[in-house]
Amino acid sequence: MSEDEIVGIYRERLGLGEDARNDVEAVQAGNRLLVSKVDTLVYGTDVPPGMTPRKAARKAAVACVSDFAAKGVRPRWALVSITAPTSCTARMHGSMASGLADAADAYGFKVLGGDTNRGSEISITVCMMGLAKGVFPRKDAPTGPGYWKRPPAVPGRGGASPGDRVFATGPFGLSAAGLYAISHGVPGPRGALRAVMEPRARLDFGARAAPYLSSTMDSSDGLSTTLNEMAARSGVAIIVDCEPAADGVAEFAAKHGLDPDSLVYHGGEEYEIVFTLRPGGINDIFSAIRDTRTPLTPIGRVEEGEGVYVGHKDRKRLVDGGWKAF
Amino acid sequence: MSEDEIVGIYRERLGLGEDARNDVEAVQAGNRLLVSKVDTLVYGTDVPPGMTPRKAARKAAVACVSDFAAKGVRPRWALVSITAPTSCTARMHGSMASGLADAADAYGFKVLGGDTNRGSEISITVCMMGLAKGVFPRKDAPTGPGYWKRPPAVPGRGGASPGDRVFATGPFGLSAAGLYAISHGVPGPRGALRAVMEPRARLDFGARAAPYLSSTMDSSDGLSTTLNEMAARSGVAIIVDCEPAADGVAEFAAKHGLDPDSLVYHGGEEYEIVFTLRPGGINDIFSAIRDTRTPLTPIGRVEEGEGVYVGHKDRKRLVDGGWKAF
Repeated sequence: MSEDEIVGIYRERLGLGEDARNDVEAVQAGNRLLVSKVDTLVYGTDVPPGMTPRKAARKAAVACVSDFAAKGVRPRWALVSITAPTSCTARMHGSMASGLADAADAYGFKVLGGDTNRGSEISITVCMMGLAKGVFPRKDAPTGPGYWKRPPAVPGRGGASPGDRVFATGPFGLSAAGLYAISHGVPGPRGALRAVMEPRARLDFGARAAPYLSSTMDSSDGLSTTLNEMAARSGVAIIVDCEPAADGVAEFAAKHGLDPDSLVYHGGEEYEIVFTLRPGGINDIFSAIRDTRTPLTPIGRVEEGEGVYVGHKDRKRLVDGGWKAF
Repeated sequence: MSEDEIVGIYRERLGLGEDARNDVEAVQAGNRLLVSKVDTLVYGTDVPPGMTPRKAARKAAVACVSDFAAKGVRPRWALVSITAPTSCTARMHGSMASGLADAADAYGFKVLGGDTNRGSEISITVCMMGLAKGVFPRKDAPTGPGYWKRPPAVPGRGGASPGDRVFATGPFGLSAAGLYAISHGVPGPRGALRAVMEPRARLDFGARAAPYLSSTMDSSDGLSTTLNEMAARSGVAIIVDCEPAADGVAEFAAKHGLDPDSLVYHGGEEYEIVFTLRPGGINDIFSAIRDTRTPLTPIGRVEEGEGVYVGHKDRKRLVDGGWKAF
């Protein structure tokens, strides 16, 4: 059974509909837009060999922060549920707690509380909450052009139009190369180890740039997954005319007989924001790029049609080959 | 390592402090008080033999609802994270999804979305959110006696005073007796099977009565845990002068050579609200008891001192013998 089928079962029985397909959930809570997200890190599945419990717990939180970043919302609160076998030592629990504290410090959220449970495998579930900027108008507020106020909102995965440009907050392939390097005991490209062990979310950039993006999504399941989802939700085609590979990834792939496209497009575990901009929109986010020192990676452009294609003359369809839990 | 020690590690590193010791977390979000809670059900630990996946998932949600009920807040939204091995069938996922839908229907919350993960063991993490009644005054609101408004709040575990009476929303012991009956293949007391397989949270009662309770806590970890925690947090002694055993529990214990006190005080998995009332406070909650058909169970009274004691002349200390995950 595929992940899509499993998710489909829950969607149908819980009446979630297409609205729920976003990086975060957003609902009106009083006069604010409450944004929330849950993400579970399972040790046996999501933690590469050699990663300390501290880094693993930090990563569990970063995965959640990254989805907030793509929507331009700063997470303010977190609940954490830890499941562990009885053999898990105080040292390990302490290390995981420190990793959560690292993330809380780095991204400015507060852990409110949580739950501890006994289970056969360690897993860390992080539930994050935050408030989108802006308030809903009071019910008794005057209406009309002079008083009109846009209610708070988060940008979606759809919204890209033909003519838009596609960018990301960094190049791709380092995480997949790093994971291969670690598991095969070979040196990886520069920055690959760090990409695996200390991923960071683009929160400062997202918080500033999000209002200007026509569509946006976190890339953690893989760039091919993200681009296909954005194209499908926007009803457009995305043409990748600029290979977004990080330095050294192509050489690493050649040396080890790997497919470079797999590393770049399907690796996942890269917490970048992929986004589209209206023509000229780069001016709107220029200061966000500069002030937050975000490496802007051009990826391609949006056209009429459907699907994702790579290349100039000989266009090749880029299928969704990203991470699927099942 | 004990659960308290594990929780202590996270508390310390995350700077949680004593404030975090409540059934739910509550923070100001815009003009409302946002209430949240996370709870994980681990199959191998928390699911008794013979319980269907549908009932298990329903129970995972009820455990969260019960903590909201004890604080008088209706949960409005939930995020759900499901971890399962690849061997978990579509039928099982469908059953779990239906169990979540059962709880959502019964308690009026909406599942917004969630996460699916691969792991060695099935676990269901439910994160619930809601808003306490009332709004925080506007910053520009006039102040003074005529305008003074109490900000929204949830009742705590502390707050009981000498002279208060202690009650619960139901008698105790059926869940523990039912669990014994199921695992030993013997008939349990009337209602015991249902107590185990279909626990319900006292949400309607809690939502109406909470403002009038001097202290309140959910009993899901066991009545002895709850009473000791409330006594400690309130800085008082609690005297149990009225055995809160459900009908048939004493006979069941005698027949099977079990300690009846263990079943009543330490069994846990009973989602009742334990609460204290100021003298005469029963009048305030009378209509809540009547309209929601809540079985009011008198337990005892609050005195100066510390700890929890059972009995009249020969008082015996009731230690915390409830459920500990570790």
